[in-house]
Amino acid sequence: MNESVDREVDGLVRLTATRFRIGFSYDGTDFFGWAKQPGLRTVQGELLAALTVIFGEDPDDFGIRVAGRTDAGVHALNQQAHIELTEQQLDRLGRNRTDIQNPKFLADRLNRILSEDLRVHTVTPAAPGFDARFSAIFRRYRYRIADGLAGQNPLESRFTLHVFQTLDTLAMQAAALEVLGLHDFASFCRPRPGSTTIRELREVNVVRNQAAGNVIEIELLADAFCHNMVRSIVGALIAVGKGQATSADIRATLERASRTESYRVVAAKGLTLVEIGYPADNLLASQAELAKNLRSHDELEA
Amino acid sequence: MNESVDREVDGLVRLTATRFRIGFSYDGTDFFGWAKQPGLRTVQGELLAALTVIFGEDPDDFGIRVAGRTDAGVHALNQQAHIELTEQQLDRLGRNRTDIQNPKFLADRLNRILSEDLRVHTVTPAAPGFDARFSAIFRRYRYRIADGLAGQNPLESRFTLHVFQTLDTLAMQAAALEVLGLHDFASFCRPRPGSTTIRELREVNVVRNQAAGNVIEIELLADAFCHNMVRSIVGALIAVGKGQATSADIRATLERASRTESYRVVAAKGLTLVEIGYPADNLLASQAELAKNLRSHDELEA
Repeated sequence: MNESVDREVDGLVRLTATRFRIGFSYDGTDFFGWAKQPGLRTVQGELLAALTVIFGEDPDDFGIRVAGRTDAGVHALNQQAHIELTEQQLDRLGRNRTDIQNPKFLADRLNRILSEDLRVHTVTPAAPGFDARFSAIFRRYRYRIADGLAGQNPLESRFTLHVFQTLDTLAMQAAALEVLGLHDFASFCRPRPGSTTIRELREVNVVRNQAAGNVIEIELLADAFCHNMVRSIVGALIAVGKGQATSADIRATLERASRTESYRVVAAKGLTLVEIGYPADNLLASQAELAKNLRSHDELEA
Repeated sequence: MNESVDREVDGLVRLTATRFRIGFSYDGTDFFGWAKQPGLRTVQGELLAALTVIFGEDPDDFGIRVAGRTDAGVHALNQQAHIELTEQQLDRLGRNRTDIQNPKFLADRLNRILSEDLRVHTVTPAAPGFDARFSAIFRRYRYRIADGLAGQNPLESRFTLHVFQTLDTLAMQAAALEVLGLHDFASFCRPRPGSTTIRELREVNVVRNQAAGNVIEIELLADAFCHNMVRSIVGALIAVGKGQATSADIRATLERASRTESYRVVAAKGLTLVEIGYPADNLLASQAELAKNLRSHDELEA
């Protein structure tokens, strides 16, 4: 059973369409983020242009929706989105139409059109109730820092922040525990009118990865992140790592629950969305309803 | 004991200088190779410009010499070079002059000037007899291919060749054994007048790296490589992996010992110089003499 949806086109005709789930990755360096913007190269814009080559113009942007709306310069591995294709669009595949069931078929077609900094891994018919954004139950981000103790690998410089000082990772991990849990993260979010800043941060790990030349990796997992939340928390942790702030400072900032600008929002280049979590298929629809009510006004995340 | 050398400047004055060994890495994507060229961004050019900021103009380019003269687009990890600094130049460090013994001191000074796609790891006084190029006893290169079976990671696309087909790595490894050993590699070298094409290829391994998303890594180790040798051999192995050539074809090509153009010189982007090997300190000088006589006319390698 696939997800079949009604699509409104030009506010007039309703067409039955099949929803497809897309798994993809990108090097965010040369993109102005996910969201389509006139005249700018964006991930959404490139994906839509490639879909248009294959399926023709779509007035509703193929009903595309993404799990993590990343900012300019932020990277993604295993990003998830969905699109909706009508019977008429699928018929354009001609005698290859049944190949759409093969997860690699449309992925390869798209990859032949896209640049190498954006790769589609799989395109599969979505399970009933699946919504790439609202069915998601968690997002995992990783921030990479090469500090004074770490090896400098220029092949990784596009996705690693370089800091000359040596950071105290134990102090950073201790401070990270202060923000763990369900909190109002207003102090770490760029505010958006009408949108909540309450989030559940379920994991924050600060690890010096010896196998990767002693680079520091900070992994954060939450139900969702408000805008700039990961980069603000990482900025605060770096201040702790440099000895410029303490765990108590971080706790006080969190408890203030208002945007303080006291810590730097660190550079986008070090940030990668690494995983989107979904529940079992039978919970996809109810999770989507729940999240839609909670976060319908949140437009940007990372 | 450090290596102390006599430097001729402007063909007139001879100055005593100390030779320093530099370990560094670069993402070759945005460089026109190692060798300095007017008006083009090259690794040598950037290093010399940074040295000039610290030590002032040097008419002899600081006597710089590199172990592996990489082509445009080729990357390097753990590349090695040497430079020579006169007493007058070292005096410009002022009260930090003695810090030059700390391998990170000049490296950090250079990194603050250089772009992040070129990183200097260490600068140390060279052992007596050390010559970055001629003392080297082996060079190791790695070629990375993401084929139909491999995961596509756009964060690695700058240093990985993408091939849509699935390559037969077992057939590639079998064919690789045909070129192993001491041979005249004329069939796989871009010819240079007066320069030998006899090389000893000591290792060729074709491995599908499961930990790295099933990417194919081809590692080659030789005393030295003639120009385009790695990329020609990899091109031949890819033809084998696609079923377009056999081990016997590769052997026949090698035995012909003349440039045939029958296999593609693959794209530079997949190629990374990963290691330069040197003998024990007491053999540095004799190895340098030996190699100078063998290969004084070879200018380009990868």
